[in-house]
Amino acid sequence: MMNPESTPSSPLSRVRIVLSRTSHPGNVGAAARAMKTMGLSRLYLVNPLCTIDDVAVARASGAQDVLESAVMCTSLSDALAGTVCAAALTARRREQMLPMRWSRQAGSDLAALLSQGEVALVFGNETSGLTNDELELCRMPVMIPTNPAYSSLNLGAAVQLMAYELRMACTDLGEAPRGDDGEAARFEEVEGLVGHLQAVMADCGFYNPVSSKRLWPRVRRLVGRMALERDEVNILRGFLNAVRPGVKGISPQALRELEDKL
Amino acid sequence: MMNPESTPSSPLSRVRIVLSRTSHPGNVGAAARAMKTMGLSRLYLVNPLCTIDDVAVARASGAQDVLESAVMCTSLSDALAGTVCAAALTARRREQMLPMRWSRQAGSDLAALLSQGEVALVFGNETSGLTNDELELCRMPVMIPTNPAYSSLNLGAAVQLMAYELRMACTDLGEAPRGDDGEAARFEEVEGLVGHLQAVMADCGFYNPVSSKRLWPRVRRLVGRMALERDEVNILRGFLNAVRPGVKGISPQALRELEDKL
Repeated sequence: MMNPESTPSSPLSRVRIVLSRTSHPGNVGAAARAMKTMGLSRLYLVNPLCTIDDVAVARASGAQDVLESAVMCTSLSDALAGTVCAAALTARRREQMLPMRWSRQAGSDLAALLSQGEVALVFGNETSGLTNDELELCRMPVMIPTNPAYSSLNLGAAVQLMAYELRMACTDLGEAPRGDDGEAARFEEVEGLVGHLQAVMADCGFYNPVSSKRLWPRVRRLVGRMALERDEVNILRGFLNAVRPGVKGISPQALRELEDKL
Repeated sequence: MMNPESTPSSPLSRVRIVLSRTSHPGNVGAAARAMKTMGLSRLYLVNPLCTIDDVAVARASGAQDVLESAVMCTSLSDALAGTVCAAALTARRREQMLPMRWSRQAGSDLAALLSQGEVALVFGNETSGLTNDELELCRMPVMIPTNPAYSSLNLGAAVQLMAYELRMACTDLGEAPRGDDGEAARFEEVEGLVGHLQAVMADCGFYNPVSSKRLWPRVRRLVGRMALERDEVNILRGFLNAVRPGVKGISPQALRELEDKL
């Protein structure tokens, strides 16, 4: 996984999170934590209506550094100076609004702009949102898709979602980390198991090639889907040996002939 | 926008959020709110280490109904009974782990399974995460991509991100809500404006077709990018009339001839 925050000149270091007239210190702290989990660090506070107190620090958890380096501004214009694009989070369509983007598209479009300079994501007051004057300073209105019956996203949660979308858009995730898959079994090993299973099933009367024709394809399908590892083939054959000692598995050739007759 | 939560039989009504051994009531409340914003409603609490107190209710905000209908369980198995797939959120790779998925892929894969039945997203304790015994009951380990230097996602934030991914995967968002675009200007209206602009620029000496050949293509490019509306064309022509009264715009035919010579 590429780490977009690992260098000072990384794309994510050019993202500003701008909170305007925030009322609750806990939300400022939650925003700082949300930012840091996604590799963002540049917090701007425009005329906060609260002080950055112990509640903020507690909610910031290990992201106190983001809180401490927050830039205090007396106007949104100050917070946006030097950016190439300001996106505004909004919960609803308004009059005279520019065309809007969903959060995912916005993350992708903003990430593309990071090669040109800094971008800002602007979040308004918890209750009243952004004013029309503030919205006018932003050229990309953004909506997070929510439940129309309850669209009340917490401020920290909205910052978390947008920071996540930016990180996703800036990161080449590649494959998810592999589990402990072990070594995949080879074709002939799986066929050996299948032949052994067939013989044991026939020996104990569970399966009769003549009378239970429909069973075998289902067993085949199940084994095929298991994506067996070498160790697992050995475990299963060990089990078959233990449950029916002395029953020899049939050969791949005999198995094919038997299946041709089904 | 299709609303996946609008019917009782909607896919999102088949998603369980399972919180095991949660320590902080605020996180339970935040999870309830996060769920409801994304249209989820079924919260399961496995042996919570806290009571659902006023702090939880306050953080749930308008999602108290989700909190009140939470199902209390004494084991993770109880919470998973009846599900077709349990996904486990985990912050790190562990021994003997199944192949993992990133959050976005998990959202998509779980959404596909909703046609078969209920799915669960399981979140462990804030500090210790899920135990190995709990993980073994889940067949899809999921990781949210985070900053490797600070991966400390708040529990409510993790629920928010996964609920968002499920909503995104279940929702046909369609186009983002349109802004107030107004009626797009027609080709000939834009050409009329360009001819008018050319004449005024020439009249005031800003632009000389002979000496400033490189200027005009840039003006053309700018106007082309503006995606003008009818009202805007009228505003701009009104302005040109006001700033240089009496200057007639050149015709589209004259404009083309002039541009051919550039």
